[in-house]
Amino acid sequence: MSWSKIMECVPNFSEGRDLEKIEKIVSAFRAKEGVKLLDYSNDTDHNRCVVTVVGEPEALKAAVIEAVGKAVELIDLNKHEGQHPRMGAVDVVPFIPIKGCTMDDAVAMSKEVGAKIAELYNLPVFLYEKSASAPYRENLAAVRKGEFEGMAEKIKQPEWHPDFGPAERHATAGTVAVGARMPLVAFNINLNTPSLDIAHSIAKRIRFIGGGLRFCKAMGVDLTERGITQVSINMTDYSKTALYQAFEMVKYEARRYGVSIVGSEIIGLVPMAALIDTAEYYLGIENFSMDQVLESRIME
Amino acid sequence: MSWSKIMECVPNFSEGRDLEKIEKIVSAFRAKEGVKLLDYSNDTDHNRCVVTVVGEPEALKAAVIEAVGKAVELIDLNKHEGQHPRMGAVDVVPFIPIKGCTMDDAVAMSKEVGAKIAELYNLPVFLYEKSASAPYRENLAAVRKGEFEGMAEKIKQPEWHPDFGPAERHATAGTVAVGARMPLVAFNINLNTPSLDIAHSIAKRIRFIGGGLRFCKAMGVDLTERGITQVSINMTDYSKTALYQAFEMVKYEARRYGVSIVGSEIIGLVPMAALIDTAEYYLGIENFSMDQVLESRIME
Repeated sequence: MSWSKIMECVPNFSEGRDLEKIEKIVSAFRAKEGVKLLDYSNDTDHNRCVVTVVGEPEALKAAVIEAVGKAVELIDLNKHEGQHPRMGAVDVVPFIPIKGCTMDDAVAMSKEVGAKIAELYNLPVFLYEKSASAPYRENLAAVRKGEFEGMAEKIKQPEWHPDFGPAERHATAGTVAVGARMPLVAFNINLNTPSLDIAHSIAKRIRFIGGGLRFCKAMGVDLTERGITQVSINMTDYSKTALYQAFEMVKYEARRYGVSIVGSEIIGLVPMAALIDTAEYYLGIENFSMDQVLESRIME
Repeated sequence: MSWSKIMECVPNFSEGRDLEKIEKIVSAFRAKEGVKLLDYSNDTDHNRCVVTVVGEPEALKAAVIEAVGKAVELIDLNKHEGQHPRMGAVDVVPFIPIKGCTMDDAVAMSKEVGAKIAELYNLPVFLYEKSASAPYRENLAAVRKGEFEGMAEKIKQPEWHPDFGPAERHATAGTVAVGARMPLVAFNINLNTPSLDIAHSIAKRIRFIGGGLRFCKAMGVDLTERGITQVSINMTDYSKTALYQAFEMVKYEARRYGVSIVGSEIIGLVPMAALIDTAEYYLGIENFSMDQVLESRIME
């Protein structure tokens, strides 16, 4: 790809089980000039699908708007249950600057897209993260609190008047958060315990809002199929709070319960630096520079 | 770089202290169409300089031949002392296929370059690794054994007749090994002991020829300036024998002496996968695919 500007978008849809519906939504990103679908993964426990797509800004914007339309048409939240909190058929649409774009460009794009999907689909839209219209709206969990069910009443409060669209929850598609942010790493750590209480206690200790790591959001998740639980983590700025820091912290927090880590997983895409930084830590590499990575030098 | 074919070359020169000489040698790789100098690092203890350069095959070949000429002109091995074994002013010239080239292409290039530098500079050349003219010549350490000093006699033996050039050691530039191989990771692990015996004992345990890891070469090195020693390692196929395996092995081998690891370093360039694979191990990431690395997806 010889695009001079690359923007990334990572829309999360509240469908993780019906593969046909997922394919229909994802098809909006296929065979589009200036758009490249990088990844999509669904989680049946969460009942959620995370899509990662990059593109030249204008082409990406059009594809995202189309995908939102399909999701609104296909997903009925009244019939949705799953481990992951959700307020919308399209739950969240973050834009991330990758190359030749600034955070301001990503914020501007999020506002254009927010306004458009509100108009086209009669969807209430909340701007969040770096696009938020007020500090209390920056945090996605705060916007989403109460979920789809609670939004019926919440949206009528003055402080939760949507940034775009009607002050009324869409009957089947709920509401959506649209914004701009740094690249995020979705990192889940599995524990050898079926106790959701333990997983959630650990999550509360490691996350920022609980007094833990600065750029870390986390919650406990029940992996019912496997009989174990998971600390589901979003590393919101891996360049400042590294993956290994969350990992090591979960390890020692789990120790108090006699619990240990049995594995982990990365959902969707991860910037090279996030993992290389972790390798640097474990190998104790001194004076390492990302310039020493062959692929980054070839890419220049 | 929109080159369809990319070859890499990592020439090692026996000059690690005189920065002026190093700059003169390295200048052969600068400002050349079709050639990109990626990295060069010198080590004063080893008294050696490792250069990493990529390029379109023909352009790379010409630049390498020029650099060899400068090194032959500038370096007098009769005055060379250092921690790293050496047999030539240019000690070794490996070619590595990176993109659009096969190992056969790299072998062919090494033979063309070997023949040319033998002719131009009256230099005895030994083909090694995948270019070797006999199995006993594959291993660089075996070719180099006896070093510059021993080569005066060694080269007169029928079994050590050079593949190109005169059967006589160049008076100041010695001999050189030229060949083709997989990407190599130069990985040094520092120990909290000044004992070279201990470092070397550990090296002998972890390396293939001593009964250790399959794709691992190692030796002990004295870091006199720092008062410690180092296990200097070449990981010859990181995709099969991973960096963390050598690291963990050094750790437990060192334990028997009450010695521990104080840090490590990567010399020159390292393919992304070598470090990401290591992060995968330490974080216990399940079902990870290199396709999940953002930069590798963008590069496609």
